[in-house]
Order: sequence, then C-alpha cells, then structure tokens
Amino acid sequence: MEIKILQAPDITARLQEQLTPLYHQLNDQLRQLSLSEIMEKAPQTDIVVAIENEELVGIAMMAKYKVISGHKGMIEDVVVSKDHRGKGIGRKLMEKLLEKAETENLDDVLLFSGHHRTAAITLYKSLGFQLKESGLYIKKYS
Amino acid sequence: MEIKILQAPDITARLQEQLTPLYHQLNDQLRQLSLSEIMEKAPQTDIVVAIENEELVGIAMMAKYKVISGHKGMIEDVVVSKDHRGKGIGRKLMEKLLEKAETENLDDVLLFSGHHRTAAITLYKSLGFQLKESGLYIKKYS
Repeated sequence: MEIKILQAPDITARLQEQLTPLYHQLNDQLRQLSLSEIMEKAPQTDIVVAIENEELVGIAMMAKYKVISGHKGMIEDVVVSKDHRGKGIGRKLMEKLLEKAETENLDDVLLFSGHHRTAAITLYKSLGFQLKESGLYIKKYS
Repeated sequence: MEIKILQAPDITARLQEQLTPLYHQLNDQLRQLSLSEIMEKAPQTDIVVAIENEELVGIAMMAKYKVISGHKGMIEDVVVSKDHRGKGIGRKLMEKLLEKAETENLDDVLLFSGHHRTAAITLYKSLGFQLKESGLYIKKYS
C-alpha cells in the first residue's frame, strides 16, 4: 500500500478514471471537479472592506478553494467596528462577498458561527444560509 | 460608505494599521496574518491517495487558505473504497495530511462530518480533532 501526496505528474488520465467511481461511493449525485482543476493555482481570498471618511470600519473575507465536491468559499473574519454596528455594514460586506461567489460560480459558500452569536446568525439566515447537520471539528497547532 | 473588494494596490500600510485594532475587537489573542500574506498566491489543495496494486483505494484532500485568523487547512472528500475499509487506510490518509499541516505550520486544521458518521468521528478525535461549539452554515448555488 502506497500513501502519497499527489504531485502534478501523478495526475494521469488513469488515476482520474479510477477516482470518479471511487468518489461516487461517497456521493453519487455531485458534479465532481477533476484533479487537475483542483490543483490549479488561483487567487485565493477575497477581502471586502467598508471605509467611511477614510476610516476602516468593517472587513470580511472569503477564502476560495477547490476540492472534488466543488469550488467553495469559506467566509471568515467578519468584523464591524463597535461604533458602527446596527447600520447594516455586516450585511453589505456579506452581500459583496456573495456577489463575488455568484460571479465566480462557486458551488457552496460556508461559514461557521458560535451558537451564541444570534444577531450574526439571523443575518446569515436572511442571506440564504442554512445550518448544516454536521459538526465542525478543529485541530489547533498554535 | 464605500464597500469594496480589495485589489493588490489597496493594501497600504495605513489600511493594515487600521485593521489590527479593528480585528482585535473580534479576537485580541490571535496572531494576525497580514493582508499581503493573505493575498499571496499559493498552491492550494494537497491531495493524498492510497494505491494498492495499482488500484486507487482511497483519497483525501486538504484545501489550505489564509485569512486574518490564520493559515488553515480544510479537510474534505475523504473516501476509502468499500472493499478496503477497516484496514486503517482512512487513518493513514489523514496522518499524511496532518504531517503536511505540521510541515507548513498551519494554525488550524478543520473538517466537518455528519453527526451520524460515528466511525469517522472516532477516528478524527483520536487524531486530535475536537468538536467546535459552532454551527456550520451553508449557502448552496448548485
């Protein structure tokens, strides 16, 4: 048994042919991205800012990545300055990222949010996000 | 109020100076990645395969991305062929990806798993993953 990280020359037609049915065992309804699509280098993270009178008052970002199950966006690090909350800035930041997700034909956009962040969760749901019946697991190194 | 996606020329020292205290409002204990680090292009997804007698019997991958809160890995699309389960292949695939996470000094590795996948969850916990007290939200486009 060989266990190895793929390098570009490993991506052969034969490997791709074997992958498609293997992946069907996990999910047989999904459009699959190919290994060569996944390994392409691409700009990774969109950062959106809110600026008022030359002051940075909010930021949010969406890291994009490709895996077999799709081209996905992960929204992280959404923050609006304390003095500027309740003015819809969070929604505007999110809307800008979701426009980008549509333009780039992302398959899914993901985010995670602490269960206690009720205002944020209300916003996310109003933008079309749904709670997934999955646990999020983390292994921290730092 | 201007809401915009940052382009490379927007990443000024002044913006970075404003960001650090703003982000502290979200988390003041975290080492922050800089905007220029986040915008670097980098190889994105590590794919690990298990091959036995020239047959692909398992695959897993880790998409890496950079946001302010760190350089992270998201593990996705772990699948071992039905005929080869119970032989520790899933663990070997995961271990290979976690070696890569250590080599590349990732801050966190994330994954999500359906609550019913008890065998997988036992494996992830034995590798040092912990359930995060956050909901995972998804917006699907496809």
